[in-house]
Amino acid sequence: MKTLLLNCDMGESFGAWKMGLDEEVMPHIDCASIACGFHAGDPGVMRHTVSLAVRHGVRIGAHPAYPDLAGFGRRSMSCSAQEIEDLLHYQIGALNGICRAQGARVSYVKPHGALYNDMMRDPELLHTVMRAVAAYDADLQLILLARRDNSEAASMAAPYGLSLLFEAFADRAYDAQGHLVHRALPGAVHLLHGAVVAQALDIAAGRPLITADGSSLLLEADTLCVHGDNPAAITAIQHIHAAMQATAGR
Amino acid sequence: MKTLLLNCDMGESFGAWKMGLDEEVMPHIDCASIACGFHAGDPGVMRHTVSLAVRHGVRIGAHPAYPDLAGFGRRSMSCSAQEIEDLLHYQIGALNGICRAQGARVSYVKPHGALYNDMMRDPELLHTVMRAVAAYDADLQLILLARRDNSEAASMAAPYGLSLLFEAFADRAYDAQGHLVHRALPGAVHLLHGAVVAQALDIAAGRPLITADGSSLLLEADTLCVHGDNPAAITAIQHIHAAMQATAGR
Amino acid sequence: MKTLLLNCDMGESFGAWKMGLDEEVMPHIDCASIACGFHAGDPGVMRHTVSLAVRHGVRIGAHPAYPDLAGFGRRSMSCSAQEIEDLLHYQIGALNGICRAQGARVSYVKPHGALYNDMMRDPELLHTVMRAVAAYDADLQLILLARRDNSEAASMAAPYGLSLLFEAFADRAYDAQGHLVHRALPGAVHLLHGAVVAQALDIAAGRPLITADGSSLLLEADTLCVHGDNPAAITAIQHIHAAMQATAGR
Amino acid sequence: MKTLLLNCDMGESFGAWKMGLDEEVMPHIDCASIACGFHAGDPGVMRHTVSLAVRHGVRIGAHPAYPDLAGFGRRSMSCSAQEIEDLLHYQIGALNGICRAQGARVSYVKPHGALYNDMMRDPELLHTVMRAVAAYDADLQLILLARRDNSEAASMAAPYGLSLLFEAFADRAYDAQGHLVHRALPGAVHLLHGAVVAQALDIAAGRPLITADGSSLLLEADTLCVHGDNPAAITAIQHIHAAMQATAGR
Repeated sequence: MKTLLLNCDMGESFGAWKMGLDEEVMPHIDCASIACGFHAGDPGVMRHTVSLAVRHGVRIGAHPAYPDLAGFGRRSMSCSAQEIEDLLHYQIGALNGICRAQGARVSYVKPHGALYNDMMRDPELLHTVMRAVAAYDADLQLILLARRDNSEAASMAAPYGLSLLFEAFADRAYDAQGHLVHRALPGAVHLLHGAVVAQALDIAAGRPLITADGSSLLLEADTLCVHGDNPAAITAIQHIHAAMQATAGR
Repeated sequence: MKTLLLNCDMGESFGAWKMGLDEEVMPHIDCASIACGFHAGDPGVMRHTVSLAVRHGVRIGAHPAYPDLAGFGRRSMSCSAQEIEDLLHYQIGALNGICRAQGARVSYVKPHGALYNDMMRDPELLHTVMRAVAAYDADLQLILLARRDNSEAASMAAPYGLSLLFEAFADRAYDAQGHLVHRALPGAVHLLHGAVVAQALDIAAGRPLITADGSSLLLEADTLCVHGDNPAAITAIQHIHAAMQATAGR
Repeated sequence: MKTLLLNCDMGESFGAWKMGLDEEVMPHIDCASIACGFHAGDPGVMRHTVSLAVRHGVRIGAHPAYPDLAGFGRRSMSCSAQEIEDLLHYQIGALNGICRAQGARVSYVKPHGALYNDMMRDPELLHTVMRAVAAYDADLQLILLARRDNSEAASMAAPYGLSLLFEAFADRAYDAQGHLVHRALPGAVHLLHGAVVAQALDIAAGRPLITADGSSLLLEADTLCVHGDNPAAITAIQHIHAAMQATAGR
Repeated sequence: MKTLLLNCDMGESFGAWKMGLDEEVMPHIDCASIACGFHAGDPGVMRHTVSLAVRHGVRIGAHPAYPDLAGFGRRSMSCSAQEIEDLLHYQIGALNGICRAQGARVSYVKPHGALYNDMMRDPELLHTVMRAVAAYDADLQLILLARRDNSEAASMAAPYGLSLLFEAFADRAYDAQGHLVHRALPGAVHLLHGAVVAQALDIAAGRPLITADGSSLLLEADTLCVHGDNPAAITAIQHIHAAMQATAGR
């Protein structure tokens, strides 16, 4: 059984608005993907989130997005490749600036929302993201969605010298192609605690998942994306975390 | 005669809007103070400006501001000390991110507009700026306005281990206290090319200036702030640059 | 006993971020002061809040602010009189546009946060606000803070043909001058339900309040500002509302 | 010969950044399409542009856009129908607020940039725009691109009770389908003054244009979009305006 890193979107408050239970989540995860000000997060929120990550020894990742605060980075924007590179460098750098003042540093990148979805759909955009991350620092890791076959993405990343982390979801149903079932469809999100923890353990153990149409899907994942926006979610994270720790300890 | 570094505000375009003759100015200056997106400059403008600086071997400085795009950073905002630190780290980091992708780096900081003026007026704010810059990297230099006596600022900077650069203006009249005469007053800005170059050389040579009320003012400056927003200004920069080079060559 | 109108700041969510219990508050108030996008509120939030007000027959007011989303309009900005007029017209108009599509309209203006505080402190700024509101529509009412003596403000408003509403706070302590005790000081905010309702009834009945230093303060108010950000606050609003209704029915 | 109304995008400056020769253009046009703050234009720029239009008796139109200042509204964004309606009401209302303070009013709407292009390509989006404009005020006119056949658009608008203005371009080449040739292609933009004026007169006289592939295209247009960003463009506008006036005088 493999120990999956737990990653969680963090620092998505903005100004007077709070989002997420960052204080409660941070003790139980391995990687904090921190918003960089374009879809959420202002300099003060970023500083606070980085300090939480430092205190708990959690790895810090940049969670860059399209420039769309009102849309929370969930709306696709027709940006050029050059615009994508520039906004990635800006956002990774900004978070790194906040980190640096606390003796920390960004160690990976996970694009957010529509940028993440667009990148997983459009190989040209994925190339752009890889090129941008590598140009910033080829030691940064890039988180991509684990799919039925990760070899194509791995081949794309190789020339950039970029190391990838493939992520799976414990609380989402997959379809036969290995894509996430759209949130709007029934059964897309596992609501029961037990189902979430079970799926996490299946992925970690290398056991295939049962997809929405009943077929079998084996995902090779390095990290598990968890969500921490309500108390039940925190409990699920704690259980998954404990299971992973137990595994690691064996 | 001392060789003053020429510094100029650069990268103040935004999106579809152009400002400044950056291409024409860059070959003739030593230090480019580049806007970081809060008062001007977007990631694409920043990348372009950094590439210009790299090509001409010009030092890159962060030119951070209050978050006020519509007001071009010229309106004071009642920010807390913590907010100031955070927005400085964010902006310096963002520019450094853009630099890093080009193998360059930020080597100094010069606050912009209202933040600069507020800092020169309010010692507590100046402390905050110094602390923030030093926390980011104590090897960064900080540009301050040269005044009749720079020793107080130097004493403030010492505990932070921060190196200061004092700047003077060639195109502005000073008052008896060593402050710049307000732009709205007659004679505040030297319009004649010859007067601008003469004041630059006086400062470089350590000769006192004649202030607005006829008294004498000796400024100890390390750098001269020049402006490059019209063709006549470019010519003045070229003349001052040539004079400084001639001095350096002696 | 006078029936005080209950006014509440509403529509202060933004994008994915929620703030305030608008659905719960709306049935119990008379006047909804709706954020206009500069400190909070986006077009979608504004539309939703207006529809709530329309459904409950609540008067709609514009709640304009300095352009400072990250600071929630709580930071003073050194804007010119012309800038203040322009940003008021823009924000009132924007909310009116949202209203118009629902057959509603803005009927009063209450500046938000730092703009409100600055206006109550600076007569020149208050003149600017009055002039701007009157230029938009002299039938709009303007909400100001009720003080020991409202006659000066009334004299200022007369030449503009502007009708004023003076507001008092049920949940805040006052000082001897009739100003609100600063939030940071002990006792500034009444935490006990009973104290809040009692102060509301005292103001409505024209009974003097006891200020922080024990002196007596008689406020002439037309409207009471209530807050609806937690369940206890909603209960207080309901009690005050019921008391006002009972009064009106007599 | 028909008198075509001349419309021009105006008020596209922002803060410290200037764009367009609005003062020079305004005396020669009939309709000013004024930016509303989402892609360009701030409240001060809008006030100034409205005052220019009022002084010259020019009709005022709202020129709303996607919320994308950095991209000047030229990047498509995947907004929902509800989001489009809301942002149109907000922007039309905001401009109307600025107008109202000067005794003027918005009389038509012309979406900007990517929103305009997307609307002309996607009938569902066009419906949304029509519904939104009609909900604001069915007396507002909506400007659409004149095509080989305008009847479909006219049928769509009828149930909304909306009056349409079809616009043609004097300085752009058309293809056989009646679309504008993409700017990136050779010959897409008429650079010669004479060609621009000739095309304007052909459209006004109801004479067919020769498209990029040599076929013939008859456009039924009500208004001609002109651009005023350089002195040569101003001269072209003056000539076209004079020709239209001469026609009108006959």
